[in-house]
Amino acid sequence: ERCWRLGSALRGRGLAPGERVATLCPNSPTMLEAHFGIPAAQLILVTVNTRLGSGEIDTILKHCGARAVLVDAELEHLLEPLDLADVEIVRVDDSGLATDPYEVLLAEGSPDEPERWLVDEEDTISINYTSGTTGRPKGVQYSYRGAYLQALANAISMRLGSDSAYLWTLPMFHCNGWCNPWAVTAVAARHVTVRGVDPAQMWDLIDSEGITHYGGAPTVQLSLINNPAAHRIERGLTLMMGGAPPSPTLVARLAELNIELVHIYGLTETYAPMTVTPIQEHWGDLPAGEQASLRARQGQSHVAADLVRVVDDEMNDIPLDGIAMGEVVMRGNIVMPGYWNDEEATAEAFRGGWFHSGDMAVWHEDGMIEIRDRSKDIIISGAENISTIEVEQTLAAHPAVLEAAVIAIPHDHWGERPKAFVMLKDGAAADEAELIAFCRDRIAHFKCPDAVEFGPLPKTSTGKVQKFVLREKEWAGRESRVN
Amino acid sequence: ERCWRLGSALRGRGLAPGERVATLCPNSPTMLEAHFGIPAAQLILVTVNTRLGSGEIDTILKHCGARAVLVDAELEHLLEPLDLADVEIVRVDDSGLATDPYEVLLAEGSPDEPERWLVDEEDTISINYTSGTTGRPKGVQYSYRGAYLQALANAISMRLGSDSAYLWTLPMFHCNGWCNPWAVTAVAARHVTVRGVDPAQMWDLIDSEGITHYGGAPTVQLSLINNPAAHRIERGLTLMMGGAPPSPTLVARLAELNIELVHIYGLTETYAPMTVTPIQEHWGDLPAGEQASLRARQGQSHVAADLVRVVDDEMNDIPLDGIAMGEVVMRGNIVMPGYWNDEEATAEAFRGGWFHSGDMAVWHEDGMIEIRDRSKDIIISGAENISTIEVEQTLAAHPAVLEAAVIAIPHDHWGERPKAFVMLKDGAAADEAELIAFCRDRIAHFKCPDAVEFGPLPKTSTGKVQKFVLREKEWAGRESRVN
Repeated sequence: ERCWRLGSALRGRGLAPGERVATLCPNSPTMLEAHFGIPAAQLILVTVNTRLGSGEIDTILKHCGARAVLVDAELEHLLEPLDLADVEIVRVDDSGLATDPYEVLLAEGSPDEPERWLVDEEDTISINYTSGTTGRPKGVQYSYRGAYLQALANAISMRLGSDSAYLWTLPMFHCNGWCNPWAVTAVAARHVTVRGVDPAQMWDLIDSEGITHYGGAPTVQLSLINNPAAHRIERGLTLMMGGAPPSPTLVARLAELNIELVHIYGLTETYAPMTVTPIQEHWGDLPAGEQASLRARQGQSHVAADLVRVVDDEMNDIPLDGIAMGEVVMRGNIVMPGYWNDEEATAEAFRGGWFHSGDMAVWHEDGMIEIRDRSKDIIISGAENISTIEVEQTLAAHPAVLEAAVIAIPHDHWGERPKAFVMLKDGAAADEAELIAFCRDRIAHFKCPDAVEFGPLPKTSTGKVQKFVLREKEWAGRESRVN
Repeated sequence: ERCWRLGSALRGRGLAPGERVATLCPNSPTMLEAHFGIPAAQLILVTVNTRLGSGEIDTILKHCGARAVLVDAELEHLLEPLDLADVEIVRVDDSGLATDPYEVLLAEGSPDEPERWLVDEEDTISINYTSGTTGRPKGVQYSYRGAYLQALANAISMRLGSDSAYLWTLPMFHCNGWCNPWAVTAVAARHVTVRGVDPAQMWDLIDSEGITHYGGAPTVQLSLINNPAAHRIERGLTLMMGGAPPSPTLVARLAELNIELVHIYGLTETYAPMTVTPIQEHWGDLPAGEQASLRARQGQSHVAADLVRVVDDEMNDIPLDGIAMGEVVMRGNIVMPGYWNDEEATAEAFRGGWFHSGDMAVWHEDGMIEIRDRSKDIIISGAENISTIEVEQTLAAHPAVLEAAVIAIPHDHWGERPKAFVMLKDGAAADEAELIAFCRDRIAHFKCPDAVEFGPLPKTSTGKVQKFVLREKEWAGRESRVN
């Protein structure tokens, strides 16, 4: 009823089918309702990452042409510097009180299902922005059909049922929470939302709410399993984890706690989970170390998509020998129809008829893939994408900087973190702390480098920066170049 | 590879896309391969019920225009009386030997995936014959899309995973085994086929093969739970049960054995499971008797379909009060596109834009439906449909019979069984045994009446037989008129 009120009220304020409604909210009942109420009115949902700065948010709202924004009271300051004269702004106090502007909006709507205007299941249900490789944000479109099938596929992979209770640690603004708002409701299970990740509170809720499922990146797991409240959950708990492969230590610790790991891999462009690691019955007979490395492989496609391939530069399959490397390419119901208003980027991503992940993998004899490197200039830190180009351009804007190269370095907690290599202008001066502070004033804090090293950059004879030289040094002794 | 060989070999023998290939086989590797190999060649699969007689089989093969039949060696005699000159007949010895005619067929094919000719996901993947209400068989078409979505929905309802092992007690010729050949493979789980249901063997396999899932009608469960080998299965076992609601005794005994019950309801026209009873968390706090009756309700729609409605004669929703009765109507991805070559029956079934189940139900406040009666002249015995009209017409062909009325009577093991009420011609003579034997010579044995009562039939003033009068007597003291 609340979802229908939301859709109906937004129509009442003059929004027409296909127009965009953005959210800037943490996980909350409002975010959940937005995933149903906004599509119920055939409006397009744009869940903005709450970790972005005002400038980045402005770019997204303008790019998608948002007609309305639901903004949590704690994040309202991020919109203050922006010119949003033509945009309907609704503050969400997350209070449930009749005076809460969001509740005022709902009260305007009808409790009945809005008239259905949807005619084509390929229409866009949501747009999810990704920083992409160029620093210019790209709006990944999700279709009703794709979101529906991904929801079913997730329900299967996690074995969700009507007696499940799902804890919302994964941000719903990320790829629409991997489509889990729809998956959990599809099977008539229960949602439990939390505004942020607090490991002690998570352990409380796991017990008091009888949580059976949750999802997130390895980063969240490390906080959780190392918390003093950690204990074995006798009835079991299922974790869908993506963003980086699990370490053998994590696999072992999750098993101790009786947390079943469903390891997935995907991108914003694939409605999140694209592959899943299918546990095979005979793995149980293998030594723990071998089991852990099989579980760390990215596996093969989620049930709703075509099998992924690993190809060479001419789109030929590479050998399934676990040695040759190629790019992972994808196709099927859970691969995006394209980027919002960006035909050029869409065409580039789909060259040869398959979506190019930019991830480099080996292909094992049994068809499973294992990611080893990344061809895109992207750093994945705590499951957030960071465009190295965006960070480099920010640094280059500093008056003392001549040029900058940013690469991922491995990090125990975040998986990867950005590190900058900077060459200063002749006679100019700037130290590490100053450059980091300069970045923090301009881009989201998670994107700013952890470290800055000064000196000339390694280059090719034609003057191109050789990032691989920098990376080889930082990743020495590791088999993989992603973490 | 074997499935691709099958598809490729059938093409090699001259079959063209959209042509029909029938099977007359018990559950076996061949039946499983047929569910993949025949669609792989874009041929249409027609799985004939192995319990039918030669005449009934002939009607089906002619109605669908079968170009080929895979027939198990033990059932070959059923085809002998038939004129199948233009039909490619392949005997299946189920031996795996190179001399097995089915293996000879596979050897003709290519181990590579046949070229894909499928252009539309709404095309027909299979035809499932149902006896219908008129005695004239109707061919229910399944589309690729519907079968795919039903497979995903079943995987969700049963919580199938890549480490599951599914025991094939449910006949694959019934609604394509409720689409489970596709569901089990979709999640990379393991199939275990058995040619027939033998409770002692089932208990052996549950242990030796580590069976995690199976399906079937209550009849099969009664044999299973009453077998001397019955024992508690510590690791759990999931049963998808349909065909009749579970009794409180059955619910209690399954719980003792640690068998989780997934109660579904559906028809051939709905790819089998249309509704599922969603276990709600708070049911655990209710007394056992109340839980059992909630579990016996048919529930609400499977995830891949629209919610079912219960309507009056003008297609208006009846009150959700658990008292008013109406007909269950259905719509959505897992409702058949229509009957094969039978526009009239299709139009009749879909009057008002919804499929008419012929089942009469009350509608509870929480949206769950509960079947109480049947408006169609159908008897459901051991999950097999029996057309009362077909049995009546068979009886009427006996020279001594003036007229006959057949109704369902409750039966502890089979749920329902047919009973005939017969008025003999003046001066003619025939006894119960003679009439039953007459039927057994002409129609499938499971369709023949268990009992025959002689005398004048109750009629309306216009001469129509009042079956309800006969039924009231036989069902006296019961709340429901179906079992």
